[in-house]
Amino acid sequence: MSRYMLVLSYKGTAFHGFQKQPDARTVQGALEEALATLAGERVETCGAGRTDAGVHAAGQVAAFDAGAGIDTGRWMKGLNALTPPDISVLEVREVRPSFDPRRDAVMREYRYFLLNRPAPSPALADICLHLPGKLDLELARQACSSLVGTHDFRAFTLAAETRGTVREISACDIGEAGAADHLLCIVVRAPSFIYRMVRVLAGAVLDVASGKTELSTLSAALAGGTGPCADPLPPEGLFLWKVEYPQERLSA
Amino acid sequence: MSRYMLVLSYKGTAFHGFQKQPDARTVQGALEEALATLAGERVETCGAGRTDAGVHAAGQVAAFDAGAGIDTGRWMKGLNALTPPDISVLEVREVRPSFDPRRDAVMREYRYFLLNRPAPSPALADICLHLPGKLDLELARQACSSLVGTHDFRAFTLAAETRGTVREISACDIGEAGAADHLLCIVVRAPSFIYRMVRVLAGAVLDVASGKTELSTLSAALAGGTGPCADPLPPEGLFLWKVEYPQERLSA
Repeated sequence: MSRYMLVLSYKGTAFHGFQKQPDARTVQGALEEALATLAGERVETCGAGRTDAGVHAAGQVAAFDAGAGIDTGRWMKGLNALTPPDISVLEVREVRPSFDPRRDAVMREYRYFLLNRPAPSPALADICLHLPGKLDLELARQACSSLVGTHDFRAFTLAAETRGTVREISACDIGEAGAADHLLCIVVRAPSFIYRMVRVLAGAVLDVASGKTELSTLSAALAGGTGPCADPLPPEGLFLWKVEYPQERLSA
Repeated sequence: MSRYMLVLSYKGTAFHGFQKQPDARTVQGALEEALATLAGERVETCGAGRTDAGVHAAGQVAAFDAGAGIDTGRWMKGLNALTPPDISVLEVREVRPSFDPRRDAVMREYRYFLLNRPAPSPALADICLHLPGKLDLELARQACSSLVGTHDFRAFTLAAETRGTVREISACDIGEAGAADHLLCIVVRAPSFIYRMVRVLAGAVLDVASGKTELSTLSAALAGGTGPCADPLPPEGLFLWKVEYPQERLSA
């Protein structure tokens, strides 16, 4: 047996999240079905992280074990032919037998896309949040900056987690995304996140940008608030953009 | 009666084009249904141009007559509530009674989006062409430049049109679109286009960029070839981006 890594892109709209569940259409479920067809036997996968229902991925990473020396190019083609059109396999490569896509990841990047104009965009409806209200981009940038660094993010999760909620945000910024006018993107990078953290964090940034809350409220939440400091944004704007690994954790 | 202008955005995927047809779902048909509900009577619209089945719009323009002094803000909200989610009304304004969205337009801009990487992107599948092959962007830029100016574009249409095929392209370029890696965009601007011209033209640019044809073949086609010089690209990547009018043709 050898170990293989997959880089996946998917549109989360019609999936009940990444993680396999009985009787629900999931990315992992669809992926393992395609892998089983290629391998001729059941194949278990594990992912770099779960994405919630409706959340997309541009570069999710998963790993599985299969017979040594499979033709990765052929498997990539085969997987793209066998998975539904809302999943795309960007890469298949052999990695070292101990590779763990969750534990070995040293950086995760999420991007939250939003369209800030009065009317929605039908072409982008599934893949960004429509936010008609006025936003102060400079305040949003300040809010993003204030999140960078090591903080106790207990006020940025929905679960009643109060232990192990310290995380280090390496980068956080908001700017024009390109491709269309008024399309904005919040980019946030951290070695790891807690449950729903990105959507609460993005909600908090937009609350500041829309004047709903003050920057000082955000600072207070970072100093260790109780309960989520903002409503989590809906899933449609969120992409797990990429997951990064040190070269030595990958090498077969 | 007064005359009103609408700016429309739509996702063309599930429409049989802009123009009203019996027994087919069209943008104009859906729009006129919503307008009739608001006006309490049948309302006829005319558009700045037809878009083919599957082609999108970020800023199509249409006009209609209705009772004088309607509340344009309320009509915009009403239209957005009454049209299906794949149509969005960006603007409603009163214009002068003789306003003709087709004849008064002085500039039209189309954008063709393409994803140039080995695997497709599920999130972008409906709104860009997936082109896995290698492209020479510099050659593509040269092809775009060569199209700018006044030429006989008879080799860039599918119809057997050989009269009235002279057009002036004001600008044509290709570049990174932003928002996602490997997402490219061809932008082309002209006062008017002939049937299928943008899709044949974009196809010709990509034929040069992929090495399928030479730049000199494009020059020969511009000098007046017979028959289309390239296969038209599929509709999913194409957006009617905006239509421009001189202020004096709009003023009510």
